[in-house]
Amino acid sequence: MTDPIRPTDDEARALARRLLADADHAALGVIDPATGGPWVSRVAMLWHGGAVELVVSDLAPHAAAMRADPRVSLLVGEPGAKGDALTHPRLTLAGRAAPGDKAGARARWLAQRPKSAVWFDLPDFRLVRIAPGAASLNGGFGRAFRLSPDDLNPP
Amino acid sequence: MTDPIRPTDDEARALARRLLADADHAALGVIDPATGGPWVSRVAMLWHGGAVELVVSDLAPHAAAMRADPRVSLLVGEPGAKGDALTHPRLTLAGRAAPGDKAGARARWLAQRPKSAVWFDLPDFRLVRIAPGAASLNGGFGRAFRLSPDDLNPP
Repeated sequence: MTDPIRPTDDEARALARRLLADADHAALGVIDPATGGPWVSRVAMLWHGGAVELVVSDLAPHAAAMRADPRVSLLVGEPGAKGDALTHPRLTLAGRAAPGDKAGARARWLAQRPKSAVWFDLPDFRLVRIAPGAASLNGGFGRAFRLSPDDLNPP
Repeated sequence: MTDPIRPTDDEARALARRLLADADHAALGVIDPATGGPWVSRVAMLWHGGAVELVVSDLAPHAAAMRADPRVSLLVGEPGAKGDALTHPRLTLAGRAAPGDKAGARARWLAQRPKSAVWFDLPDFRLVRIAPGAASLNGGFGRAFRLSPDDLNPP
């Protein structure tokens, strides 16, 4: 069996950075505290300063899950409506959720994600910051790369 | 704090069934055997007979993860390109991955997912079947429902 992982190159790094910069939402994987199994939900996000920022409601199950176990994974890169979804590039990140500075992020979110104005200031919404420890890029069928945090941040 | 979960009604059941019938891909959450934390990736899917069918490559990390721990979660319901992604309905399922009958599913997949012809017959691709045990529908901002397997299957 040949190794399906290709050597990371500048094209892969640029693609991963573009997917993160363009993402306004992600599929968030957490550990469900009730079962110990995974649980995936949709969250609003913004890539900033080498980390994913989420703004999530305390009322949502994923918020309780992250309080119980901070290990998370994120999938970004939405396929378009046309073609095979598996040919579209996507990026998986893994890291740990940590409390973030919501007040300090407010101007950035409202400028870059104007629709977040509907819920950003609600008192049950908190900022969560995830600095990725590992990343896996799938640039389309058969084009897989492992990336480091340094690969995701321009030098 | 009020309960954010609404009573399940026929409209919620119909929406969940439509999301499953329309989904040709999903975000799959598994337990990463290297870390014990979650890992989310994109997979091709087809809803059939009260279960999600996946066709995944043995070379992909999620295949190894499901062999080590069959607990999985799936997120279906892609937001369109317009508007706030959080206002678009989506459904989270949780269940256990089990080996499926790829030969028996072939005609169905090639008819309903013609683009799967590119990879369906590759020898490292296997059918995985996930009968959901729990489901959570988010019908848009503030419209959350818990659903049972019976809610997902017409009587």
